[in-house]
Amino acid sequence: MAKKTLGISVKKSENFSEWYTQIVQKAELADYSTVKGCMVIRPNAYSIWEHIQDYFNERIKTLEVRNAYFPLFIPESFFKKEAEHAKGFKPEVAWIQNSGEELLAIRPTSETVMYDSYSKWVRSWKDLPLRINQWANVVRWETKATRLFLRTREFLWQEGHCVYETKKDCDKETRIYLDEYEKLCEELLSIPVLTGTKTEKEKFAGALYTLSIESLMPDGKALQMGTSHNLGQGFAKSFKIKYLNKKEQVDTPWQNSWGVSTRLIGALAMIHGDDRGLVLPPKVAYHQVAIVPILFEDSKKKVLKKANELKTKLKAHNPLVDDRDDYSPGWKFNEWELKGIPIRIELGPRDLQKKQVVLVRRDLNEKKHVKLTSLSKEIEKTLVDIQKNLLKKAKKHLEKNTVEVSHWQDFKKDIKNRKLVLAPFCGEKNCEEQIREKTDGAKSINIPFKQPKEIKEPCIQCKEKANFICRFAKSY
Amino acid sequence: MAKKTLGISVKKSENFSEWYTQIVQKAELADYSTVKGCMVIRPNAYSIWEHIQDYFNERIKTLEVRNAYFPLFIPESFFKKEAEHAKGFKPEVAWIQNSGEELLAIRPTSETVMYDSYSKWVRSWKDLPLRINQWANVVRWETKATRLFLRTREFLWQEGHCVYETKKDCDKETRIYLDEYEKLCEELLSIPVLTGTKTEKEKFAGALYTLSIESLMPDGKALQMGTSHNLGQGFAKSFKIKYLNKKEQVDTPWQNSWGVSTRLIGALAMIHGDDRGLVLPPKVAYHQVAIVPILFEDSKKKVLKKANELKTKLKAHNPLVDDRDDYSPGWKFNEWELKGIPIRIELGPRDLQKKQVVLVRRDLNEKKHVKLTSLSKEIEKTLVDIQKNLLKKAKKHLEKNTVEVSHWQDFKKDIKNRKLVLAPFCGEKNCEEQIREKTDGAKSINIPFKQPKEIKEPCIQCKEKANFICRFAKSY
Repeated sequence: MAKKTLGISVKKSENFSEWYTQIVQKAELADYSTVKGCMVIRPNAYSIWEHIQDYFNERIKTLEVRNAYFPLFIPESFFKKEAEHAKGFKPEVAWIQNSGEELLAIRPTSETVMYDSYSKWVRSWKDLPLRINQWANVVRWETKATRLFLRTREFLWQEGHCVYETKKDCDKETRIYLDEYEKLCEELLSIPVLTGTKTEKEKFAGALYTLSIESLMPDGKALQMGTSHNLGQGFAKSFKIKYLNKKEQVDTPWQNSWGVSTRLIGALAMIHGDDRGLVLPPKVAYHQVAIVPILFEDSKKKVLKKANELKTKLKAHNPLVDDRDDYSPGWKFNEWELKGIPIRIELGPRDLQKKQVVLVRRDLNEKKHVKLTSLSKEIEKTLVDIQKNLLKKAKKHLEKNTVEVSHWQDFKKDIKNRKLVLAPFCGEKNCEEQIREKTDGAKSINIPFKQPKEIKEPCIQCKEKANFICRFAKSY
Repeated sequence: MAKKTLGISVKKSENFSEWYTQIVQKAELADYSTVKGCMVIRPNAYSIWEHIQDYFNERIKTLEVRNAYFPLFIPESFFKKEAEHAKGFKPEVAWIQNSGEELLAIRPTSETVMYDSYSKWVRSWKDLPLRINQWANVVRWETKATRLFLRTREFLWQEGHCVYETKKDCDKETRIYLDEYEKLCEELLSIPVLTGTKTEKEKFAGALYTLSIESLMPDGKALQMGTSHNLGQGFAKSFKIKYLNKKEQVDTPWQNSWGVSTRLIGALAMIHGDDRGLVLPPKVAYHQVAIVPILFEDSKKKVLKKANELKTKLKAHNPLVDDRDDYSPGWKFNEWELKGIPIRIELGPRDLQKKQVVLVRRDLNEKKHVKLTSLSKEIEKTLVDIQKNLLKKAKKHLEKNTVEVSHWQDFKKDIKNRKLVLAPFCGEKNCEEQIREKTDGAKSINIPFKQPKEIKEPCIQCKEKANFICRFAKSY
């Protein structure tokens, strides 16, 4: 009875969508809010976000990016300055109704409000490159069903916005930030990603081109995990960002913008979780270790004392000691498994006598006895191994579910079977629209950076000349 | 000519208000936005905020508070649940106009939206205490003139919201968070604060009582720097937060909430700044050291090399090397003074020969020669000393401008002279209103925790029985 309330009632392989909804709520990552379309990011997920922030802040500091904060509100007139951008975001914008003043949007993204300030700050080539990042909430007035972390009206993200003298500098760094996202996903979250360029149809509203990282979820749907846009000179022209170049001439700079969001937390839960609950990569676990003392009346005091000693000794891993009286050890095991804590340590009176503990790793559910003298070392080693193992497992899944095709019938079949499909593609918007219609919703994911020297086969759909190999899949 | 554009054109002692506006903009702490009433927090100020976040996050972690994030939007119906609270915030709320759905406020504070979730999460005494903090933007639709950091329609803050079984626990921790704010201000920002209880007139809308930290600005106006509210059981009742106590009875918990905001950055600029610009306490300086190599054609290479060596050697202090060709050393000195960097190191060819540098501390503008061999140590020592000296200086100012009075004529005179005045007070709302009217705007600041055993004098204004000694001043 107890287990049933605590745990997840469906299997990941049988009802993925319901499994995801349960894992997010039962592991206390997030909760639906009474406020329609919005979510509450609970401490267990927010601490993952803080790890992402810490990791990424350190990286961008070395790239000479500084953090700042710009207004939540964007005057309607700013939006109108960049036509493509305004069109792209129009259906998603929430507006403020305070009287007597200009209509204000709540930022869905901050290009316009930031570049209005940039136009005041940038005067000379000496002011460039200008590299600013902000961590902020953004609002997109979604009307489709809410999916925690994946589709909510408000979410958290970072958005970097840089200004350069030349296209070359801008190209170079647009790619650098994408590479940083790839590293963040692989090193910190143990999530393998696919890097590439978005098609014309899928690029950011107002961008010259968009680069992206994408990942494949266990249900065979691709998830866009982050983007880096070369914005060209369009925004600079619309917002009158000009500078005196080294020849003392007025010039127009180049810009990029790049972002990842709390969506990453959803991806992490989907990819690593199992039927027993969440599985956290150690590098983002608030508690890396859960210590569960096995309490009997006669030995309780001694066992608790040792458990607390271990807590102190292992404090680098921020362990918790579950000393609750009114729960059984089994309940406690289930709870910390559900919440994804990487390592559980069980400590009973007999273990104490033998100067050992039972160590259970969450990812493989493997138990072993470890002597107290070698516990610290064993934990270090196991955490490194879990981090690696999760990435390896996810990579295997990705590889197993990626196929290359050159015939339309195979394409349709593999898309139906929820594969990530690589196929020759012309790149035309109309053709992509056709693919979408004929496959019940497959979208281009991105175009791999590495392309064959020559593409012999024609476009998978229209049979015209293929300009590149492109990834397609059903997607979130 | 150059100096005039770069530096501040008025004296702090002569035109404080204009001085403040200039220092904030010229030290690039913040900028007005085209968006009415809003500000842009620029990197030089945002990094101060990040230091505040890091410091405070570490402290609250030890107090078992977890960070989370709740929706930006608050349904109108939530506001109506707590009458006092709704009344208090009504004039300041911005509303969203998206059609067909309930009117949504943009959070001016998050009690209501958080407690709606708490009512779902709290079931048993085992769930208590519940301690959650969030770092977020909040919006209050100010109609008075914008003052960067002090009065803007949007600002950043943290808000802690805890739930307890008993009033005693709640009282105790309401005070603990206030004490943490006091430490934060003194240890990190070198700002002395006055702790106490708000009067009935000035307490938070919906609170049982409000504790606050306050400081005195150089223009003699008090600034509220942070508050900690015991909310009693009012919100719990309105939002139906109930729990089963240890006796298995349904019970109503006690709550507190507490916050500090980016206003702290404004206070820091006001208190420590001087006629040459910002003065940063070392603990919140992004760059603690500015290295200015003195460049001549023949020795340039050597001097630059040494400057960069020093940068590496001193990397714990995140030094900058100002190697710009097209600015004079004098311009550079002025710029880093304006921006408040605690220590400047000047390094010319003659210094290089003598294996020394010139070290200038920002707070006292004192220069000395320091041998390269003892530079690290000297910098460590000087930074500690600057941090302490700023606090000492600010304490002296506060003490010098605090007076105790018991006669109405003295009270009026001292308020007029922009003093912080301690006076016996009855505590009645009407009487406080009278004081305000008769003194052209003096407000009660707070009631010191430490009170005399017996108050012999009557209330300073109404001459009825005084219930405590209270602080009064003009205020922001």
